Amino acid sequence: MTRRISQPLRIGKVTVGGHAPVAVQSMTKTDTRDAAVTIDQIKQLEDCGCEIVRVAVPDSEAAESLAHIRRGVSLPLIADIHFDHRLALAALRSGADALRLNPGNMGDREQIATVVAAAREREAPIRIGVNAGSLPAGFCPEVGLAERMVNMALDQIKLMESLDFGLIKVSLKAFDVPTTVQAYQMIADRIPYPLHLGITEAGLPRTGVVRSAVGIGILLHQGIGDTIRVSLSAHPCEEVFVAYEILKSLGLRQRGPTLVSCPSCGRAEVDIIALAEAVSRELDNMSKPIKVAIMGCVVNGPGEARDADVGIACGKGKGAIFKKGEIVRTVDERDFLEALVAEAREVD
Amino acid sequence: MTRRISQPLRIGKVTVGGHAPVAVQSMTKTDTRDAAVTIDQIKQLEDCGCEIVRVAVPDSEAAESLAHIRRGVSLPLIADIHFDHRLALAALRSGADALRLNPGNMGDREQIATVVAAAREREAPIRIGVNAGSLPAGFCPEVGLAERMVNMALDQIKLMESLDFGLIKVSLKAFDVPTTVQAYQMIADRIPYPLHLGITEAGLPRTGVVRSAVGIGILLHQGIGDTIRVSLSAHPCEEVFVAYEILKSLGLRQRGPTLVSCPSCGRAEVDIIALAEAVSRELDNMSKPIKVAIMGCVVNGPGEARDADVGIACGKGKGAIFKKGEIVRTVDERDFLEALVAEAREVD
Repeated sequence: MTRRISQPLRIGKVTVGGHAPVAVQSMTKTDTRDAAVTIDQIKQLEDCGCEIVRVAVPDSEAAESLAHIRRGVSLPLIADIHFDHRLALAALRSGADALRLNPGNMGDREQIATVVAAAREREAPIRIGVNAGSLPAGFCPEVGLAERMVNMALDQIKLMESLDFGLIKVSLKAFDVPTTVQAYQMIADRIPYPLHLGITEAGLPRTGVVRSAVGIGILLHQGIGDTIRVSLSAHPCEEVFVAYEILKSLGLRQRGPTLVSCPSCGRAEVDIIALAEAVSRELDNMSKPIKVAIMGCVVNGPGEARDADVGIACGKGKGAIFKKGEIVRTVDERDFLEALVAEAREVD
Repeated sequence: MTRRISQPLRIGKVTVGGHAPVAVQSMTKTDTRDAAVTIDQIKQLEDCGCEIVRVAVPDSEAAESLAHIRRGVSLPLIADIHFDHRLALAALRSGADALRLNPGNMGDREQIATVVAAAREREAPIRIGVNAGSLPAGFCPEVGLAERMVNMALDQIKLMESLDFGLIKVSLKAFDVPTTVQAYQMIADRIPYPLHLGITEAGLPRTGVVRSAVGIGILLHQGIGDTIRVSLSAHPCEEVFVAYEILKSLGLRQRGPTLVSCPSCGRAEVDIIALAEAVSRELDNMSKPIKVAIMGCVVNGPGEARDADVGIACGKGKGAIFKKGEIVRTVDERDFLEALVAEAREVD
């Protein structure tokens, strides 16, 4: 897993690209014109670990509201702009830290030049955010979807480069995972800019989590990706949670406890699923990045429990509590939860 | 995505490997000694699309119960054996279609020879199922975990090959995703046998789904993997659901409807999350592999709705219903759900 090292840029206080950790972002789902509820959702996002927030700016009222929102929150804000370049200018005036422009619906050279000039003045990066669902109908009909997305991005990149603007970030999102992966792979070696990863319109959590994890996971494992946004039809904090789980699974970020728990089988002599659920609830607010193993039998139990910071290998009515690789005590079944949680809270 | 073509084998009625579709498997979580409840769970698994079921056989009573279970279900059954080779022999006598042996706790040449002879007689394949949590403490301490798992599998493979037995399937499971991926990559070119993929002890669904999707997804996208088992601390049907979603996201299997739905943002003028949830509930039992798009605005809405079999692009109070790329009607907000579901039921 050799990481593609991109040309870093700053979005407010957060560095994206270069050697910076992969940044987690999400997007508000409130009406941007309602500054109070939008500020409230951004604060929820900050509390759950979101590092950059995007806000839709569909009209001038939303662009004006953005000024209030900007003053009310500390997270970096990206204004999401489609169709009308004047909204980009208004969003920058309202203090947006960066813009997302969709080249599929905004490509006029003069308009882009005006936006680029205003962005340069404020040192605000621009994401060229290509989306499979909004490619112009007649664009590059001779090539496949991945290449069409790449070509659309490259055209806009060339335009911005010709305006001597390099604070660029790029995304190439489709619903189809192999298409999305192919598009990012195609562009990765051709441009020096940071890449924002996502699987677009991935759906409700039950299915969208899988689709996002597969797509974003494949790319990150190839060393591609500087910031990620998981798109789910759900509260945005759920997107942030899943984003961190993807990054944790690849060892790219740490955040809170990681539970190793066996799936249970005909060999288990305790209700390992209920125990794992209870432990998870107890550790829900813990921020320490510790590994906790909850194992149902002697097959992998001692091995996994030993490998975790804290673990329990359960047998019939008794469990061995492990801490940093050593058995520290043996407890009765009624004490499994309490003992494991107590050790987890104590461990460094 | 060029698939690694392995040497196919049959597990009961299911072909694993070669050009066969990636098979979905799970494992019962009932007490195997209780044949009635185990049969019931296997039937639930069959109903939700599971194709191969593994059953723990921790003692001779469980091995005897397996004979009753075998007569009560039609899905192929794999007996999961650890420590005691006599349980493998008993499971085969009870009609197990295949065995899973853990080389980490069963490696005696004479014992393996006895099991292999019985398996050959019944044409029952054996999975060499290596697990990071049950590697013997002193095994290959000079190399990393992935290579230790690979070496453990290769040793057992050589032993079985020396006994002229080739009905082999291999798994190399760890909790750590990069380790698991590395292990499968290392062995993929060195053996001709089918590979069973999984991330072991991945945990509760909320986190385990992500971990499994990332790990299994990376390997499948590299063309590696003939059968998969998602390990979750949850009902086994949840494992099967997630397995199919992983395969669907990579275009490797089809099963039921696929919902494309936007995450919603400050641009949406309808409650797209509630609509997506309602559509999902209505289509829950549909088996047709159709793509249904539920989109909140004009940015990607028409594009994604046009690309789906059935879709809706919502605007203020009105939505355009698409079918196979064409707008078929425009409906009022109160009719969004009914109209979309009706079209989805009708489409071929």
